Amino acid sequence: MNLLGAREPSIYGEHTLEQVDQLIQEKASRLQVRVETFQSNHEGTLVEQVQQASGEYAGILINPAALTHYSIALHDALKAAGLPVVEVHLSNIYAREEFRRLSVISPVAGTVISGAGVESYLLGVEALVSLINKRT
Amino acid sequence: MNLLGAREPSIYGEHTLEQVDQLIQEKASRLQVRVETFQSNHEGTLVEQVQQASGEYAGILINPAALTHYSIALHDALKAAGLPVVEVHLSNIYAREEFRRLSVISPVAGTVISGAGVESYLLGVEALVSLINKRT
Amino acid sequence: MNLLGAREPSIYGEHTLEQVDQLIQEKASRLQVRVETFQSNHEGTLVEQVQQASGEYAGILINPAALTHYSIALHDALKAAGLPVVEVHLSNIYAREEFRRLSVISPVAGTVISGAGVESYLLGVEALVSLINKRT
Amino acid sequence: MNLLGAREPSIYGEHTLEQVDQLIQEKASRLQVRVETFQSNHEGTLVEQVQQASGEYAGILINPAALTHYSIALHDALKAAGLPVVEVHLSNIYAREEFRRLSVISPVAGTVISGAGVESYLLGVEALVSLINKRT
Amino acid sequence: MNLLGAREPSIYGEHTLEQVDQLIQEKASRLQVRVETFQSNHEGTLVEQVQQASGEYAGILINPAALTHYSIALHDALKAAGLPVVEVHLSNIYAREEFRRLSVISPVAGTVISGAGVESYLLGVEALVSLINKRT
Amino acid sequence: MNLLGAREPSIYGEHTLEQVDQLIQEKASRLQVRVETFQSNHEGTLVEQVQQASGEYAGILINPAALTHYSIALHDALKAAGLPVVEVHLSNIYAREEFRRLSVISPVAGTVISGAGVESYLLGVEALVSLINKRT
Amino acid sequence: MNLLGAREPSIYGEHTLEQVDQLIQEKASRLQVRVETFQSNHEGTLVEQVQQASGEYAGILINPAALTHYSIALHDALKAAGLPVVEVHLSNIYAREEFRRLSVISPVAGTVISGAGVESYLLGVEALVSLINKRT
Amino acid sequence: MNLLGAREPSIYGEHTLEQVDQLIQEKASRLQVRVETFQSNHEGTLVEQVQQASGEYAGILINPAALTHYSIALHDALKAAGLPVVEVHLSNIYAREEFRRLSVISPVAGTVISGAGVESYLLGVEALVSLINKRT
Amino acid sequence: MNLLGAREPSIYGEHTLEQVDQLIQEKASRLQVRVETFQSNHEGTLVEQVQQASGEYAGILINPAALTHYSIALHDALKAAGLPVVEVHLSNIYAREEFRRLSVISPVAGTVISGAGVESYLLGVEALVSLINKRT
Amino acid sequence: MNLLGAREPSIYGEHTLEQVDQLIQEKASRLQVRVETFQSNHEGTLVEQVQQASGEYAGILINPAALTHYSIALHDALKAAGLPVVEVHLSNIYAREEFRRLSVISPVAGTVISGAGVESYLLGVEALVSLINKRT
Amino acid sequence: MNLLGAREPSIYGEHTLEQVDQLIQEKASRLQVRVETFQSNHEGTLVEQVQQASGEYAGILINPAALTHYSIALHDALKAAGLPVVEVHLSNIYAREEFRRLSVISPVAGTVISGAGVESYLLGVEALVSLINKRT
Amino acid sequence: MNLLGAREPSIYGEHTLEQVDQLIQEKASRLQVRVETFQSNHEGTLVEQVQQASGEYAGILINPAALTHYSIALHDALKAAGLPVVEVHLSNIYAREEFRRLSVISPVAGTVISGAGVESYLLGVEALVSLINKRT
Repeated sequence: MNLLGAREPSIYGEHTLEQVDQLIQEKASRLQVRVETFQSNHEGTLVEQVQQASGEYAGILINPAALTHYSIALHDALKAAGLPVVEVHLSNIYAREEFRRLSVISPVAGTVISGAGVESYLLGVEALVSLINKRT
Repeated sequence: MNLLGAREPSIYGEHTLEQVDQLIQEKASRLQVRVETFQSNHEGTLVEQVQQASGEYAGILINPAALTHYSIALHDALKAAGLPVVEVHLSNIYAREEFRRLSVISPVAGTVISGAGVESYLLGVEALVSLINKRT
Repeated sequence: MNLLGAREPSIYGEHTLEQVDQLIQEKASRLQVRVETFQSNHEGTLVEQVQQASGEYAGILINPAALTHYSIALHDALKAAGLPVVEVHLSNIYAREEFRRLSVISPVAGTVISGAGVESYLLGVEALVSLINKRT
Repeated sequence: MNLLGAREPSIYGEHTLEQVDQLIQEKASRLQVRVETFQSNHEGTLVEQVQQASGEYAGILINPAALTHYSIALHDALKAAGLPVVEVHLSNIYAREEFRRLSVISPVAGTVISGAGVESYLLGVEALVSLINKRT
Repeated sequence: MNLLGAREPSIYGEHTLEQVDQLIQEKASRLQVRVETFQSNHEGTLVEQVQQASGEYAGILINPAALTHYSIALHDALKAAGLPVVEVHLSNIYAREEFRRLSVISPVAGTVISGAGVESYLLGVEALVSLINKRT
Repeated sequence: MNLLGAREPSIYGEHTLEQVDQLIQEKASRLQVRVETFQSNHEGTLVEQVQQASGEYAGILINPAALTHYSIALHDALKAAGLPVVEVHLSNIYAREEFRRLSVISPVAGTVISGAGVESYLLGVEALVSLINKRT
Repeated sequence: MNLLGAREPSIYGEHTLEQVDQLIQEKASRLQVRVETFQSNHEGTLVEQVQQASGEYAGILINPAALTHYSIALHDALKAAGLPVVEVHLSNIYAREEFRRLSVISPVAGTVISGAGVESYLLGVEALVSLINKRT
Repeated sequence: MNLLGAREPSIYGEHTLEQVDQLIQEKASRLQVRVETFQSNHEGTLVEQVQQASGEYAGILINPAALTHYSIALHDALKAAGLPVVEVHLSNIYAREEFRRLSVISPVAGTVISGAGVESYLLGVEALVSLINKRT
Repeated sequence: MNLLGAREPSIYGEHTLEQVDQLIQEKASRLQVRVETFQSNHEGTLVEQVQQASGEYAGILINPAALTHYSIALHDALKAAGLPVVEVHLSNIYAREEFRRLSVISPVAGTVISGAGVESYLLGVEALVSLINKRT
Repeated sequence: MNLLGAREPSIYGEHTLEQVDQLIQEKASRLQVRVETFQSNHEGTLVEQVQQASGEYAGILINPAALTHYSIALHDALKAAGLPVVEVHLSNIYAREEFRRLSVISPVAGTVISGAGVESYLLGVEALVSLINKRT
Repeated sequence: MNLLGAREPSIYGEHTLEQVDQLIQEKASRLQVRVETFQSNHEGTLVEQVQQASGEYAGILINPAALTHYSIALHDALKAAGLPVVEVHLSNIYAREEFRRLSVISPVAGTVISGAGVESYLLGVEALVSLINKRT
Repeated sequence: MNLLGAREPSIYGEHTLEQVDQLIQEKASRLQVRVETFQSNHEGTLVEQVQQASGEYAGILINPAALTHYSIALHDALKAAGLPVVEVHLSNIYAREEFRRLSVISPVAGTVISGAGVESYLLGVEALVSLINKRT
């Protein structure tokens, strides 16, 4: 089973991108799935990555960072992809500024996990595997 | 380590309350923590349970169900308890009716997990243990 | 045919609770149905009563009084009960203060009757019998 | 006792206009009142009919259909008529699109009945007779 | 003269419930009135206490805590009781989060005192005695 | 201990300005504090009086009357003064027109007292003395 | 100079339509202008009358009654007519219900007069003559 | 009969303040009333002028200029004065920027005249005389 | 194939109604369909025309003019007709006043064309034929 | 005559991008114009393409897809380009989710066509040619 | 070249009013312009100063402090003055409380500078000179 | 001292990008700082440039153009960079369309300068140098 993990945020938390990646890979191997990670600051690039995910991956784990709050393009791409989606956030977005309380991505996500720090990714991998297993 | 798991919803999902309880206990024993569960339809009873949690438990796992959207009393009690809080929802509340998109509980939660079905509880136990470990 | 009539308001109108009850029973016997009435000021108790109605009653007649405007818990319980619901109000809630114009219960009601005084209950019993007959 | 029943909707429900009329007349004769019915798609014509009702009728039963939501002219005419008013809707307007939840007619109605189908008219006749008897 | 003092908050401030009670009793004896205090976390219980106050007490002193912001049921009960009402808050609710700035209780209160800490209760007793004296 | 009591309203209530002043002075002498009162219909004059209060007074008692609802200048002056502030209103502003429910002054007040008539001033003096004592 | 005076309201005030007409004619003859009056409850008929006014009249005096608040059709017709417009109201619409405070007609009126009773028409005739004289 | 005409705007229109004054005096003498005019850019001064009008004048003609939109102090003073009020505006405030469409003064005015230029004052004097005559 | 083209606006654009009609007929004959046109300023008359369209026409082309923004009656009639609907506007309604940006008709239209002037009708005929062909 | 057709959506409808392109080219050759098409998921790339269109093309046909709802950058670029713009959508955006009803692009478009499927592009080419011919 | 610098705020920042004045004069002499400064807490006084500026000064530099957010009177006076206006703020008003983000003065300002502390005045003098030079 | 000047707008004003650059460099050399300029229409590219600024530059001068109003990604990047930020706009954004009045960038800027044309950049360089000097 292949999973796509899109956009590692580089600006929150105390782990380096490489450490986060390694933790995800360890979790993935424990769950016997394969996760490929991908990072970009460009909405268009993320949209294209999601569009190409359909045939290649069984599900998408995404941390949309600031795009969470306004990228209808990402919403549309995720919806069109037809794959299970898990949306994760390092910080609890509902406990921050008012404008961060609404995610335009959540309506197309199966599961949303917010505020567990780097752990959000690891819980997210579990949640995604669980969503995929329910479908099949 | 003792955890309080408050209010099992009886009206969503296909598992009985007992099955959910058993899954939580299995998860708890794997993580070597003790979880005591509690269920009530009364806001006042939940508030009192949370008020008494401070000395007895290391953290609170809560599914506030419909109270999610208007119980400022529960918000105040959780804030006053001073314990790590994980808020879980069986369904993805952000993908349902407009009035379910806002949680008055989330601003006092450390982690929010929404939409993973019964799995939400299990991920929630993990997230709570992780929050407690960060504190200490 | 069994009907559940929940929460008699004790604070509006000039009839005593007993008189209202008797009028409902007379109406019920004319329509050859059985109505059991129930009253509580506790949201949790009303929610539980509604949760237990499923197997026992053919429909629910409810005057949610002040809970009309904020009890999403009652909304959820009524929706989950899967029974025909008639919502009644003694006064015309749409002609009072602004905050009384919106009912969070109405979206899960089959019929809503507002402003006929004690007559609202009697019209409500008729409406409920009519809703139940349509289903079967 | 004379009642005016204004505007039968022609586009909802499975009864013909004639069948609805006959059901109303049967109900009326059981209650020993006389109901005259009237139908128009012209706001101006309805306004005039209401304006002329004062001397001739003891009360008004009205289904304002789409005008429910914006006809301040009808609101004004009903208010000026000084007669008891019962507003009825075939469907439950509070469970439909957002813009149907607000009625500009309800503030001038004594009783509002919504969602009982053709039965709404029959309950409405009863409610109107009850309102009139209270006045005198 | 008998006064009802409802719901001591147990979660704000540095005084114990007993100390607050004693301060209120001292103030009461200086003003030569009798105050009975009552505490509950249950909206329904508070509503019932208020409903029974009419014959027994000359006025109501209430700290509605979190219920301040959404309990229309408490609003209705206080209005129906027909007694002078003084609403008190330990903290200044207008200087906290946005959602705490609006009280649904204040429109039925005669006097509102907010932000004087435990002193709020003592000023409240004085204000209530003053309101009662104005009536008679 | 010196207190500044700003702006006596001349248009509400049945007491003359002199009577109110005398009642305040009596209360002040009972509490063994000195209160100087000041009245103006000019926002700028009130702002200047508040600006000069810092060195001279230990606290400010203010009835901002209509300025309550829009004078951000008064808000800024009170905040800059750095003294304890008690805001009083003769009538209960939360039970009047919608536009009177929000005070732009309250977020910088320590205590707010509303609706006790002339008694509001006397309770206000007590509350101010209490605030000052807490600080020192 | 010819003026069109559209829609005399029949439901406010204590003058008959004929009396109002006569007062307008007296005013008109004093100002040496000719006013033709017109009344209808049909939005469509009013729109047509306004559409035909262009060649025949030098200005339009209109009391739009309930249409004030929603008739964008009347707004468009008045705008297209290209004549000076004076909007009059018998009552002060800004001191009535909230929904009457906004007029969709005012943005296309040159002068608005509200609340002078029948006198509103007479002041309106003067204002219209004044507007017309400014143009030429 | 004495009238108070408050605040001549100095910044709109092509007439000097003296010309406007003279036109008002001519109109006043034709109507056999006496008008005293008053102008100030200070809210407090206008408030005081209105407060002193009660015994001296039979009515108030006011052009509140920019204060129209936010001076609740002026609203309160006019309401307390208990005299007939006519509010006039040189330009049509409803056809300008959005924030000018709402007047906080209009709810306490008997008649509102907007958009007739200097003629607004003259129509206003007539309207005020008419309001006063109705009272007596 | 028969089409109904409802309501030619008479107040925008530089073509006469006859010229527009002729252009529509030419387009229609090129596409080998038959279009009958209809014009009215009466909401009621338009509603009736739409109600009668069901049996006679294969689709409806409509320019709702000002009714676009508030005629829920037209919305209901079009929805009930069950025919493909194309909504056209001569001007670009989204680039005009704020209140013209929302159409209550669009939710029941298959295709919306706005801002192409008289060309809007001709594009609309094409779009309607295309919609009808998709259905069958 | 050269036209720029920007951004073919790849995710709606049943035609491949190549088929849509070919249909546009056929339409273009029938109308004797030249259309060059361009597709990107990157807002910045689309903005640059529009910025360079001024000298090279006579008009712009654009399907902004999800950017319709938030790309003020695209709005600014189209406005600055100074060319006729036709905005097209495959689905009827006004009949979908609430957040899709508002287009920030429409205020700078000459013509908007929504909901005709692939036909939207073909109608759009015609509309654009028509807009260009009007200018010259 | 003469400039008017209105209202030095006395309550923010660590410079005395005299020091700020001296810095402005030094900047002015470097740019070879003359600046006269003026300070008042009275809206009316500021309005009058602005009204008299027209003939005497070439431009206005203003720090409206709290009046920024509600003084439509100052907005009107600045607009009527017809001079170039630069609005300055010591603190960055867009990064403070919500109610400070909107300035009613900015729409009539040519340049707005916010958040540079005392430097805001010096940049403001430069910006004003630049605006004046562009005009001439 | 190194400064980063991001995104020159190419679409407003009469200067070429090169001329603006040269003016900035002249200003920079007068202030003895070094400014490197950077321009892009891609949000992602701007975000990356800001992310890399931390070690290399002492501050950031940015004209976010249309991204001003919706790029939370740019907001987050600027906040994370931890450098002094000056936001500049050629035109006065507060005097344009409603949707341009709010900047999501301003809350993370130290100083905001709007409406001085190309001069905005030069004042911005000064303001940035001033901000940096205050820090150190």
